[in-house]
Amino acid sequence: MTITSLTGVIPPVCTPLTPDREVDVPSLLRLVDHLVAGGVHGLFVLGSTSEAAYLTDEQRRLVVGSVAAHVGGQLPVLAGAIDMTTARVLGHVAAVSAAGADAVVVTAPFYARTHPAEIARHYRAVAGASPVPVVAYDIPVAVHTKLPADVVLELAADGVLAALKDSSGDLAAFRQVVTGARTHQGITGFSVLTGSELIVDAALAVGADGTVPGLGNVDPHGYARLDRLCRAGEWDEARAEQERLCALFGMVTVGDPARMGAGSSAIGAFKAALHLRGVIDCPATAQPQVPLSQGEVERVGKYLAAAGLL
Amino acid sequence: MTITSLTGVIPPVCTPLTPDREVDVPSLLRLVDHLVAGGVHGLFVLGSTSEAAYLTDEQRRLVVGSVAAHVGGQLPVLAGAIDMTTARVLGHVAAVSAAGADAVVVTAPFYARTHPAEIARHYRAVAGASPVPVVAYDIPVAVHTKLPADVVLELAADGVLAALKDSSGDLAAFRQVVTGARTHQGITGFSVLTGSELIVDAALAVGADGTVPGLGNVDPHGYARLDRLCRAGEWDEARAEQERLCALFGMVTVGDPARMGAGSSAIGAFKAALHLRGVIDCPATAQPQVPLSQGEVERVGKYLAAAGLL
Amino acid sequence: MTITSLTGVIPPVCTPLTPDREVDVPSLLRLVDHLVAGGVHGLFVLGSTSEAAYLTDEQRRLVVGSVAAHVGGQLPVLAGAIDMTTARVLGHVAAVSAAGADAVVVTAPFYARTHPAEIARHYRAVAGASPVPVVAYDIPVAVHTKLPADVVLELAADGVLAALKDSSGDLAAFRQVVTGARTHQGITGFSVLTGSELIVDAALAVGADGTVPGLGNVDPHGYARLDRLCRAGEWDEARAEQERLCALFGMVTVGDPARMGAGSSAIGAFKAALHLRGVIDCPATAQPQVPLSQGEVERVGKYLAAAGLL
Amino acid sequence: MTITSLTGVIPPVCTPLTPDREVDVPSLLRLVDHLVAGGVHGLFVLGSTSEAAYLTDEQRRLVVGSVAAHVGGQLPVLAGAIDMTTARVLGHVAAVSAAGADAVVVTAPFYARTHPAEIARHYRAVAGASPVPVVAYDIPVAVHTKLPADVVLELAADGVLAALKDSSGDLAAFRQVVTGARTHQGITGFSVLTGSELIVDAALAVGADGTVPGLGNVDPHGYARLDRLCRAGEWDEARAEQERLCALFGMVTVGDPARMGAGSSAIGAFKAALHLRGVIDCPATAQPQVPLSQGEVERVGKYLAAAGLL
Repeated sequence: MTITSLTGVIPPVCTPLTPDREVDVPSLLRLVDHLVAGGVHGLFVLGSTSEAAYLTDEQRRLVVGSVAAHVGGQLPVLAGAIDMTTARVLGHVAAVSAAGADAVVVTAPFYARTHPAEIARHYRAVAGASPVPVVAYDIPVAVHTKLPADVVLELAADGVLAALKDSSGDLAAFRQVVTGARTHQGITGFSVLTGSELIVDAALAVGADGTVPGLGNVDPHGYARLDRLCRAGEWDEARAEQERLCALFGMVTVGDPARMGAGSSAIGAFKAALHLRGVIDCPATAQPQVPLSQGEVERVGKYLAAAGLL
Repeated sequence: MTITSLTGVIPPVCTPLTPDREVDVPSLLRLVDHLVAGGVHGLFVLGSTSEAAYLTDEQRRLVVGSVAAHVGGQLPVLAGAIDMTTARVLGHVAAVSAAGADAVVVTAPFYARTHPAEIARHYRAVAGASPVPVVAYDIPVAVHTKLPADVVLELAADGVLAALKDSSGDLAAFRQVVTGARTHQGITGFSVLTGSELIVDAALAVGADGTVPGLGNVDPHGYARLDRLCRAGEWDEARAEQERLCALFGMVTVGDPARMGAGSSAIGAFKAALHLRGVIDCPATAQPQVPLSQGEVERVGKYLAAAGLL
Repeated sequence: MTITSLTGVIPPVCTPLTPDREVDVPSLLRLVDHLVAGGVHGLFVLGSTSEAAYLTDEQRRLVVGSVAAHVGGQLPVLAGAIDMTTARVLGHVAAVSAAGADAVVVTAPFYARTHPAEIARHYRAVAGASPVPVVAYDIPVAVHTKLPADVVLELAADGVLAALKDSSGDLAAFRQVVTGARTHQGITGFSVLTGSELIVDAALAVGADGTVPGLGNVDPHGYARLDRLCRAGEWDEARAEQERLCALFGMVTVGDPARMGAGSSAIGAFKAALHLRGVIDCPATAQPQVPLSQGEVERVGKYLAAAGLL
Repeated sequence: MTITSLTGVIPPVCTPLTPDREVDVPSLLRLVDHLVAGGVHGLFVLGSTSEAAYLTDEQRRLVVGSVAAHVGGQLPVLAGAIDMTTARVLGHVAAVSAAGADAVVVTAPFYARTHPAEIARHYRAVAGASPVPVVAYDIPVAVHTKLPADVVLELAADGVLAALKDSSGDLAAFRQVVTGARTHQGITGFSVLTGSELIVDAALAVGADGTVPGLGNVDPHGYARLDRLCRAGEWDEARAEQERLCALFGMVTVGDPARMGAGSSAIGAFKAALHLRGVIDCPATAQPQVPLSQGEVERVGKYLAAAGLL
């Protein structure tokens, strides 16, 4: 893989589990086939939507190895190396690249308090020891720090970072990186990807290279179509498709907030949808997430039906 | 170890590193001897001050194993099992208890979004599989969630938690757990420990069982003396001793905030102080923390001198 | 004014001050003329960029009265009624509508802790007593609450709110209101305006009715041109114009962060630019903001020159 | 009043309202008599617990004027001058000092973004124009900024501030000001007051001069007793009294969080308690707060009964 291949739709792949919470490899590979058939351009395993934060190191290796072997180089496989600080991240980088990942996706330090200078040191140290390109993962809701645009651009110019995956929801800051990557001296081939699945049309319009939509697990055809429409400049049709996907995304709110957090509800809904669509065998989510109730799963089904997916 | 033994001064033990950032076991054991000689009542390895977030799994095991073997049951060894969610924490629980930890210290889920119901599920699952008692670790600055007092008390009443280590800085909420632990039906032998090293006298006055002071690495005798004075009801002398320690704590601000984060400054200062006092061989901190400059280290020395420790 | 007129470019009008911090009415009216000549479609006085939080009640009345009399109904004048809670806001509503405002712009309660149910009560009470339409002002950076999309849509459906001015920077949530306003039963004539001056093209593409750009003070022609290009579907030209304006916006960072806050820097830069362009007599900002240094003002001049405005 | 008189119990006085939300002066004066009979040492009107954020300027003046005239110099009357920035605060300072306030209580700027340098400028400008001493009000939950201890001490040393009222809940930072005020060159007669009604014993033990307990409206005798016990060094009895008051404080949680915010619940409970105790005529709270239900009021009554106050 060259870093210039990071364009198009690269969904964060859900990690199907068995009822006793082991990785369900057959379901995982069916999900990969479903995504490839949907027209996606790459796969991002071990992201937040993949429940990377919940998987053991062995489970993580199993996921990367299974997916990489299954796709056999057909399309790039990015793998999260999600951990608190440099040395721990480097352990994951070694493991997932040995298991076949084409690039690693790395956040700012978390749990530990951090600072822009330390974030830069972190990425420099990771990239210095990584056998594959490093993608910065900006996800303030998880790490409680926003990657500063100037730090990202400086690291891009120095060849430390190959791409940015931005899940901050802040399109103005995203645009700053997009235009900076185009105009900043010394940056070539840097990809800027958005994780904001509800404003993909807007992100592509401002110049994003690609998108990493969690909802793409449920409807990969929709996101592939949206990507094509945007690239063709068919903005009105793109907006209509995006709005259809926004309505479908409403499924993430089915979980009762008195009984569970927003993560349990969202991941639970995606997995319930994949189960209802016949892609995976079991909708279980990892501990300590709270499972959806029967009624909540039925509401997921209604979202699918309304979007013409059932 | 029985859970009732969690009283007194239980410092979070710094993890000395070699210049190439491996665990420096001889220095670690000298630090343990220094703490025991200082009169502490227990040891907490792999806490935040121990740079647990920065250590690899192998380094963590080495720390626990070395310390547990060295103290040989003389005093209780608590070990952090710091990770994002249940399955990952359970891996650490198994490792550190096998290596000799007498209890494990576990935070709420982090990185993943969470919810009080999920926090309770998390602790129940961890305790259900842990061979040693579980201590809840409330550290909002790291995990970005505050453990609700009612959740802690409910888990204490159900025998899930053996103790609380509270690093929230919120003494009113701490007091709610302290008095709840005394009055709540079904709670016996639950220990409430404060990590707020600047208000130990106040925490013991409201009923805390013990204290977990990061600064106790630098001046264990001071914290042991403070603990004795409080237990003897010598509140004026206790306040004077606490104020001396507060002045010494000023060392955590030596690092230039334009150049590094507050964590780099604080951990860097503790390690510089241990190095200046001759306890450890090298003041290196883990990546990606920024090292103190020579001038900043000299300022640490002045704090030591002012406190009569050099 | 009817509520359907809230489209196009409606800049938040800066409030020029004299060196002793009184409202400089002649400069204010020259600024209004500059904006009208630039092609704007409405004026928003007493917004955050207008330093409403810094002006006394008398100064506020003077601003609204002067501007409303000057434009004489040529274009709509919206006025902020910025205060902590209902009764205080109603005092401002009475004052600014008596002074000639065509609509009032009202935030969620602040300083006081709040709740979605209380936000809804607040807007219902304000609208119930206001002689002019009420525009909701979503500005989390100031009030530390995000207006929930469902609350906004419910209030729109009930005729409580005439429009939303969204300065949250969250385009996905903004889109939820835009599409909700189109599809929600019972909503007619509700305007959705963005305050995000760096993503106006994107906001209009997702369906915004208009924009409220602080930078529009400095370059109203630019924003009017951007608005026209977007409405004409000339998206590539729109993007180029927006990027030119983004570069110009860089002026808000001229202030030294060791010496002043981001607000002092941004408002100071806008006023310095207006002074350099000859629109206002004095660049003073209100107390306790820190003034820009001579060197910082010179950097503002370079931004103007680079954008062809000097 | 001299600034040295700011010691002891200085409750933030609730503002009783009529059913149509006007200030109920007879009830207010009965409340003042109730507090004075309870043994308090000063009165703080127009604080957060007084619903200052909800009162119009006229209502504020009426409150200060009525209370100051009623107590006639018997004990000091502090008045909040709560507003966003300098010029607006100065308007309140003039009004409340003209109405008889002996000191004004002023927060950091809010709504507007701020910075330590701007906070210092703010207090210097306010104090420069205030005819009465200025008390800094540290209430991060309302203004979303914490007053830095070094800024407070610098302003105290320069004679800008006469006292600090700390409602941050952060006892370690509070202690830093307490000890700094004692040891910092040039500071004399500076009072440090805590607003943390659940840890009054601890705050006095670390050296606070006094306390500003919202719950003191409901049980002034309790807080006066607690103050006496602490000053007499009867720490065990003090702790028992504080714990009784903590249990009583539980009333602030009676409101259903699905239906109202924490402020509505807390202020609603205090006023319901004062109504149940026969001190005020009507428990109404200001708009847009949500009223307690009948059942919630009954639960307030149970807290009173359990504390022996009914």
